[in-house]
Amino acid sequence: MEFKSTEHQHIRYNPLKDEWVLVSPHRCLRPWSGQTEAAPEDQPPDPNNPLRAGALRSSGKRNPNYTSTYVFPNDFPALLEDVPEPPEPEHPLFQSAPAKGTCRVMCFHPDSTMTIPLMKVEEIQEVIEEWINQLNELGQRYTWVQIFENKGAIMGCSNPHPHCQIWASSFLPNEPRIKDRCQSEYYAKYGNSLLVDYLKQELKFKERIVLKNSEWVAIVPYWAVWPYETMLLPLNGAPQRLTDLSPAQKKGLAEIMKQLNTKYDNLFECSFPYSMGWHGAPTGPGTTPGDSPHWLLHALYLPPLLRSATIKKFMVGFEMLAQTQRDLTPEQAAKRLRDCDHLIHYKNRQ
Amino acid sequence: MEFKSTEHQHIRYNPLKDEWVLVSPHRCLRPWSGQTEAAPEDQPPDPNNPLRAGALRSSGKRNPNYTSTYVFPNDFPALLEDVPEPPEPEHPLFQSAPAKGTCRVMCFHPDSTMTIPLMKVEEIQEVIEEWINQLNELGQRYTWVQIFENKGAIMGCSNPHPHCQIWASSFLPNEPRIKDRCQSEYYAKYGNSLLVDYLKQELKFKERIVLKNSEWVAIVPYWAVWPYETMLLPLNGAPQRLTDLSPAQKKGLAEIMKQLNTKYDNLFECSFPYSMGWHGAPTGPGTTPGDSPHWLLHALYLPPLLRSATIKKFMVGFEMLAQTQRDLTPEQAAKRLRDCDHLIHYKNRQ
Ligand SMILES: O=P(O)(O)O[C@H]1O[C@H](CO)[C@@H](O)[C@H](O)[C@H]1O
Ligand SMILES: O=P(O)(O)O[C@H]1O[C@H](CO)[C@@H](O)[C@H](O)[C@H]1O
Repeated sequence: MEFKSTEHQHIRYNPLKDEWVLVSPHRCLRPWSGQTEAAPEDQPPDPNNPLRAGALRSSGKRNPNYTSTYVFPNDFPALLEDVPEPPEPEHPLFQSAPAKGTCRVMCFHPDSTMTIPLMKVEEIQEVIEEWINQLNELGQRYTWVQIFENKGAIMGCSNPHPHCQIWASSFLPNEPRIKDRCQSEYYAKYGNSLLVDYLKQELKFKERIVLKNSEWVAIVPYWAVWPYETMLLPLNGAPQRLTDLSPAQKKGLAEIMKQLNTKYDNLFECSFPYSMGWHGAPTGPGTTPGDSPHWLLHALYLPPLLRSATIKKFMVGFEMLAQTQRDLTPEQAAKRLRDCDHLIHYKNRQ
Repeated sequence: MEFKSTEHQHIRYNPLKDEWVLVSPHRCLRPWSGQTEAAPEDQPPDPNNPLRAGALRSSGKRNPNYTSTYVFPNDFPALLEDVPEPPEPEHPLFQSAPAKGTCRVMCFHPDSTMTIPLMKVEEIQEVIEEWINQLNELGQRYTWVQIFENKGAIMGCSNPHPHCQIWASSFLPNEPRIKDRCQSEYYAKYGNSLLVDYLKQELKFKERIVLKNSEWVAIVPYWAVWPYETMLLPLNGAPQRLTDLSPAQKKGLAEIMKQLNTKYDNLFECSFPYSMGWHGAPTGPGTTPGDSPHWLLHALYLPPLLRSATIKKFMVGFEMLAQTQRDLTPEQAAKRLRDCDHLIHYKNRQ
């Protein structure tokens, strides 16, 4: 029998993380009788929502009547700036190390019912500008500035108001540390950036491309783990950090973010839950623009839904203890997303 | 100010996986207004439950009227034995590789309302014996045999009947591959098994020990990620695989499993959800008992609940993109579990 990637199980290598994913496309036939999620619903605006313009937060501070984006310190930060440091480890198996940092919340829009696909391109551009401001400021002091959005109750997001978080840390966290190592090893071996080389191939193959404009492309990575995972990659100039983006790249990014999220929402006709975030070259004292040619800036969208607005992929058991596993292939996911409308959001249909 | 691990954030190193976890104990004060889970409830036995003795499964096969454990092939396996192989990769960034394997389901007990903490020690011993049989058989052909239990709807478990799964694969999955490397590097450097050395220290420190009998100890690892994560470690003879266990070790294991799970259920007075599984030296053709002195067999319990039967820890956003983060310290978790009764299950209280 001839091998068909849409029918026959195989494993795929993720060169950014030096790990493999098990692809079992025949498993799409499996019926589901397990836990279903509450459908992501339109919640009526909560008058006590601490993220809205003018709200009194639990810290006793009041938000201004902001009209665009608004950033404030997380009232329950996982990382504090100024804490005593743990002692030097005495045993190689019991090592702890200092961790300093800061956590901020960034509202995207004053309207609690807004989401990225429903916002205007100009409004999304303001989000991008503020991400860059934050990275500019926090990147001076911190090695890593993680910008991320948890969207939807299923992703542990406790507030539907459109917002993201920014956690800056004095240490390089695991995921970017591994990505830094893998990209740096590839660069040493081939003299090119891993993701620049990868992108070149994907533009030839085309089968995993979801969307493309003159500045950006949205791809389901060859090694995607989540059913409809995508990666946003810049097409021009190989920016290493968000702070490297040109005006055209910022505009193109706002456009592709709106379109990709319109597709996502149209896929299962729901406000599509996910965690998304940015990965670029590390920051901190001593780093300078252009110093990390092994890096290519990219965004990741990691959405859990598998079959419908209420059925998600569980990363449990085999996945936690052995290896991640996916049912539909990345190429099948890309095709399904390509087939979704990117211009008219299901809520705005006539 | 003096550093206190119960108050001040820090990162801890996991030498088994070469990664770090962020510990932010001050964050326990955070209020929670996000998604809550349905409390794990006692479901009435489903007459169509395909796992019960005598049931007709969707494959058209009928279960025998089994009275103890019962193993059958998973009707929707992620791994099949006989599939065509993908072609050799042509590009280093687009690598796929063959994956063969088999997936089985193992019922622990004919009674659908049973769970490990409610089963008799002798019945749990039969589960352990069957695990060993399975490993003995599948370990001949397969490099890795992952025994794991997904328990509770929150863990994607579609059937409350007490059961686990066994996925055997022709490849060494990511998690055991990394653990194999880390233990082997430690062994090369120090001449001892990493986990044997670790255990020695933990027995001295005592603060992360939850339970101990003459053969086994249950510990919240120094680098635990999940709020009430534990590890079961054998005290004697450094077994490398489940197949190495002595009769006394099997009996002691059944006892400590019953007691640990009784504590878990008593913690939030619910049937405690988790994924659990076994990690030991790889198997497959050419492996022999005692050939992997860098390995120490251990079980992992990975439970998601954080504050109550309905509030779990979400591993999203920062965790997915940067690094896992925990609120209460492993020592605090161990103390809370120590304080729970291990003999009388809350359902059997007078
Ligand atoms: O037990 P099931 O229903 O086969 O499936 C469950 O466990 C598997 C192995 O951990 C996961 O791949 C699935 O996502 C999960 O739903
Ligand atoms: O957004 P929140 O409520 O602060 O918290 C959420 O995101 C954090 C960062 O990803 C996670 O650590 C929490 O587990 C999650 O509930």
